[in-house]
Amino acid sequence: MKDNLIEKLLKVKDNTRVKVRFNDTDAMGIVHFKNYMVYFDDGFVSFMNNLLSPKRIEDTVHEGTVFGVKKVEITYQGSAKFGDYVIIETQIKKIGTSSITFQHEIFRESDKTLLASVECVRLAMELKTNRLLNVVDFFANYL
Amino acid sequence: MKDNLIEKLLKVKDNTRVKVRFNDTDAMGIVHFKNYMVYFDDGFVSFMNNLLSPKRIEDTVHEGTVFGVKKVEITYQGSAKFGDYVIIETQIKKIGTSSITFQHEIFRESDKTLLASVECVRLAMELKTNRLLNVVDFFANYL
Amino acid sequence: MKDNLIEKLLKVKDNTRVKVRFNDTDAMGIVHFKNYMVYFDDGFVSFMNNLLSPKRIEDTVHEGTVFGVKKVEITYQGSAKFGDYVIIETQIKKIGTSSITFQHEIFRESDKTLLASVECVRLAMELKTNRLLNVVDFFANYL
Amino acid sequence: MKDNLIEKLLKVKDNTRVKVRFNDTDAMGIVHFKNYMVYFDDGFVSFMNNLLSPKRIEDTVHEGTVFGVKKVEITYQGSAKFGDYVIIETQIKKIGTSSITFQHEIFRESDKTLLASVECVRLAMELKTNRLLNVVDFFANYL
Repeated sequence: MKDNLIEKLLKVKDNTRVKVRFNDTDAMGIVHFKNYMVYFDDGFVSFMNNLLSPKRIEDTVHEGTVFGVKKVEITYQGSAKFGDYVIIETQIKKIGTSSITFQHEIFRESDKTLLASVECVRLAMELKTNRLLNVVDFFANYL
Repeated sequence: MKDNLIEKLLKVKDNTRVKVRFNDTDAMGIVHFKNYMVYFDDGFVSFMNNLLSPKRIEDTVHEGTVFGVKKVEITYQGSAKFGDYVIIETQIKKIGTSSITFQHEIFRESDKTLLASVECVRLAMELKTNRLLNVVDFFANYL
Repeated sequence: MKDNLIEKLLKVKDNTRVKVRFNDTDAMGIVHFKNYMVYFDDGFVSFMNNLLSPKRIEDTVHEGTVFGVKKVEITYQGSAKFGDYVIIETQIKKIGTSSITFQHEIFRESDKTLLASVECVRLAMELKTNRLLNVVDFFANYL
Repeated sequence: MKDNLIEKLLKVKDNTRVKVRFNDTDAMGIVHFKNYMVYFDDGFVSFMNNLLSPKRIEDTVHEGTVFGVKKVEITYQGSAKFGDYVIIETQIKKIGTSSITFQHEIFRESDKTLLASVECVRLAMELKTNRLLNVVDFFANYL
């Protein structure tokens, strides 16, 4: 059953769309590099909420279980401006025992330019204790 | 014609919807008071883009004309959490020569709780020179 | 004793200094209006920590008591750029039963230009319950 | 002379100190992962301004030359809270033709706990044209 679940999860692709706010930009006139972390986090939330679950990832957080960010690798390939719509494509790249690696590609919607590629390792954990959880258990409980 | 335009503008009401991000919250578990400024600015952008104009306010900014924020008065009446949807109701309260006063009411969507009331005075101005523009001229050119 | 304490508090003036970060700016090349809320909050923290108290306001927050922001009135008079140093002058304007009104003036350090004037009403409250506390009791306990 | 300059630059170590603001935290009660990008950017600015140069990196930006962020790899090892002081240790790890790789280690000051390790590749470039510049030329001009 575990392998089955993992296999299914690895096939899910999610797309979400964010509008660039004026305050996302900096004096270079483009989105500040920090803000791509906000965009791919939107991708993560959207991915989790579009799985066939009765729960929302927001509830899971309020209940005390999170996928805490352990590592981020982000490469910038383009830049976005105020008013651009940005698409975040999200899928899971790897599932470990307690870790899960998401891959996010961030595009400008209008011309499909790739703006940033992200690999983000998250750990399933209990908020209060920081105790690591098993990722498959996390999903089995979530789905 | 001027009075006509002003009269019309004062009747416009706009609604837009924002989802509260995890990073909008602070250690109190609720949206940090600073972030309501981002929400009502979304209300402003939405208001401007829903007028019957071929332009978007974003283009106006890129062309060098803005409604710069001169004054904000914000009263906090409630609090929002990660995952809440927030509605921003926007209308113009007053139109002066170079100034325009927007009124924004920010609600939680689920239970219609009022979270914040905002009055925001903006000045029509040329970005490079900071020269004030006439608000009615701004709209006449924009619409 | 109460009047004595209030009298003393009303005489305190605090100055703190913040360096403008690149990501504080927006595509207009200047500090985004939202970020002045971060600066005057620094002024509040500095004011509280420079009273002759063995406690830091941070500890008070971690212990569950806060001065929650109820209302902000901010007028923008100038603009700051990346690398500017900004001075926040803070004093108490009024002390009510549960409310306390702070006044902050934000200057650019280099030429003393006034950038923003702020009046911020805060409420003494218990974090978990949102129960209002008496401001004088708050200070009597804090000092 | 080039090798000489590179050799010298590779030996420079910089330390800077940042205080964690309340609005740097999120509903987990700790600094949001996005904000470490602000902290290590402070490390970069501090590094550049503590080289024996009459210029400040801020001026270079205003003159139109930047070290734009191309890639970030960040690993989170701990967490910081409101009021913590954080130390950012910065040095150059590698100098390429147009690229320069900075290494930042972010510690909590009080107990020297490592909070995050960062490798950040930046490109020397002209702001307006995005044309790549030679890193050694950049420094030869800067120093």
